[in-house]
Amino acid sequence: MTFITFLTDFGLQDDFVGTCHGVMKRIAPDAQIIDITHGIRPGRILQGAVVLANSLAYMPGGVHLAVVDPGVGGSRRPLALQDESGRLYVGPDNGLLLPAADRFGGVVVSHEIANPAYALQRVSRTFHGRDLFSPAAAHLAAGVPLSGLGPPIDPEELVRVDLPEPEIGPSEIRTTVLAVDRFGNVALNLDREHLESVGVVPGTKVELRRGGDRWFAVAARTFGDAAVGELIVYEDSYRNVAVAVSRGSAADVLGVEEGSELLIEPQ
Amino acid sequence: MTFITFLTDFGLQDDFVGTCHGVMKRIAPDAQIIDITHGIRPGRILQGAVVLANSLAYMPGGVHLAVVDPGVGGSRRPLALQDESGRLYVGPDNGLLLPAADRFGGVVVSHEIANPAYALQRVSRTFHGRDLFSPAAAHLAAGVPLSGLGPPIDPEELVRVDLPEPEIGPSEIRTTVLAVDRFGNVALNLDREHLESVGVVPGTKVELRRGGDRWFAVAARTFGDAAVGELIVYEDSYRNVAVAVSRGSAADVLGVEEGSELLIEPQ
Amino acid sequence: MTFITFLTDFGLQDDFVGTCHGVMKRIAPDAQIIDITHGIRPGRILQGAVVLANSLAYMPGGVHLAVVDPGVGGSRRPLALQDESGRLYVGPDNGLLLPAADRFGGVVVSHEIANPAYALQRVSRTFHGRDLFSPAAAHLAAGVPLSGLGPPIDPEELVRVDLPEPEIGPSEIRTTVLAVDRFGNVALNLDREHLESVGVVPGTKVELRRGGDRWFAVAARTFGDAAVGELIVYEDSYRNVAVAVSRGSAADVLGVEEGSELLIEPQ
Repeated sequence: MTFITFLTDFGLQDDFVGTCHGVMKRIAPDAQIIDITHGIRPGRILQGAVVLANSLAYMPGGVHLAVVDPGVGGSRRPLALQDESGRLYVGPDNGLLLPAADRFGGVVVSHEIANPAYALQRVSRTFHGRDLFSPAAAHLAAGVPLSGLGPPIDPEELVRVDLPEPEIGPSEIRTTVLAVDRFGNVALNLDREHLESVGVVPGTKVELRRGGDRWFAVAARTFGDAAVGELIVYEDSYRNVAVAVSRGSAADVLGVEEGSELLIEPQ
Repeated sequence: MTFITFLTDFGLQDDFVGTCHGVMKRIAPDAQIIDITHGIRPGRILQGAVVLANSLAYMPGGVHLAVVDPGVGGSRRPLALQDESGRLYVGPDNGLLLPAADRFGGVVVSHEIANPAYALQRVSRTFHGRDLFSPAAAHLAAGVPLSGLGPPIDPEELVRVDLPEPEIGPSEIRTTVLAVDRFGNVALNLDREHLESVGVVPGTKVELRRGGDRWFAVAARTFGDAAVGELIVYEDSYRNVAVAVSRGSAADVLGVEEGSELLIEPQ
Repeated sequence: MTFITFLTDFGLQDDFVGTCHGVMKRIAPDAQIIDITHGIRPGRILQGAVVLANSLAYMPGGVHLAVVDPGVGGSRRPLALQDESGRLYVGPDNGLLLPAADRFGGVVVSHEIANPAYALQRVSRTFHGRDLFSPAAAHLAAGVPLSGLGPPIDPEELVRVDLPEPEIGPSEIRTTVLAVDRFGNVALNLDREHLESVGVVPGTKVELRRGGDRWFAVAARTFGDAAVGELIVYEDSYRNVAVAVSRGSAADVLGVEEGSELLIEPQ
């Protein structure tokens, strides 16, 4: 049983994802494809990298195909990687794959995808997901060794993206929104230890500030600890600190999206 | 061949659904997962219960996993059930599962999911779909008996949701919108017998009223019986009475959503 | 290993697609279903036909189920077809299937789906996707011969849809938008030869006109050849000529949707 997990910014409105499935199934009909998500916002490499890194621990081992690729058709290299645990990765050399691989010991083998024998016969300039990455992932799932795909690359030379770092002051934290989910929950670039460093524990009241606006929130363990409509600051299921409103959208209340800054100050 | 059907309000924008697939495939790699839908509106238990009950007759037997769970992290119990026909159900004890099970003879065995051996190692407070329900469903698919998941519960004690009942007057019907689909078709809490009780049969003209607004419609057998733009009242494919506009959105015309009330009066 | 590919305008918000999967899996549990897309705009037969024809070369052979069916419940016939290469097709007789079959040598065998043994027991008037087409596709995948489904039809009598034709003038092209994808890229009813016939090659500047508005664009090989925000005209991955904006939505810039007309004039 071989698994290919699949994450992109292709959306499900068009046939991009379905066409990639078809390409993979022609090459590796017995491989099982798990769609992690195709809802990464178009071109947002950082969001794709965070979601891939967060979700991979829940996925069976195998080949992890990820395509968020605003540089398609340019000079960025197509990659096939292996991490220390043996998981394989396929995607563009723009930093998308590395935070996930880092969670499994880091990249130990790295190859450029360059062998035309493992790509579609005609490689377009705009859809490498279909023509280059899906065939490579399927051939790996079918047993082709990583080294068959192309020349090795020094893992040290791979492009990296960096998560924005929070600024932890003596009495407040300057934090950045990493992601907003369907429920309007707002994930921040903080973990629980950051909150504790300024004295915020479950039950603490905090002030959130953004531009000239301010809101009161309470640190809580779960949604049920808050009244309907109350803002809470909590550790989410990926162990990120997040902001939520019971039965509402915190993103709408705060007017934030990915990349927005927010100040948190304990009261 | 074991099937797990999967219905949630998670949406497909985030990785919630994909992560649950990963969790299930790690435990039961040979199980086939059928996604019924993940488009239930967030937290709408009643809508989820109606869709699950309507769709289950079209699904192969197996494990039916459903998660619409606004009370996650609170005191509601996680459940594993069996109906009289042998189908298994996994989800929260908030009424979501019971209308479906009732269509197959009702719940005959009921257990609380409490055995940590069949959950993920760390159960978060906000994502039981991933940490508790998906593992339980996959372990059932892999052959774990219902009784292995936790202590039995008297099926009589399970939480129920009630469908809103229509008010059938001598000359009009007060009805509630159960669901609006992608095409803008509006499903009502009525069946054909309700319409016939006030004399509405295919060909009858009816008046629809809502607030101070009124529209004329015709009872019809199918879309083709109406002119483009004309409102029709018909029995939909789940045998609910519904309102549609040929090549348009009845929900937009009427300005209704789930829970809206509508009066129907034959002319 | 048998594959069923599946394309509709059902969307993923409701349970339509999931219910069809269930119906197919009850009949052919071992068949693999590949969802090409369910994001065809409601009732847009032409868009469905174009996407099916474009994507099929990337799909394994098998049964190709497609449902974009505004005439459901009327007099249009349900079809099961075979093309010269042996691929099978199931869907309504409204032109949806033929452009795809034409790419594989054209339809050589054609049958009406009429045998109730291969439909659900009760066929609704509004959801033939579930009650008629999915069962037929699954029975074909399970080995039922095409002739078992119903009486033969002369392939010459099948309903056809015609792609809009561009008007190629001596100094300008009048073109129609075929599709807009998630990224806002605008596919036109042109191929590269049309552009070359008025002297447009990579590097040529062109003017785009629509109503009283005009925009300048440059013919390019890929997104990377343009500055951020610049309009480009390029050959897309399905070999259609398309308009894009680097890191933006060309559809928004031009204010176009499927069916919109656009004039292209080399400068």
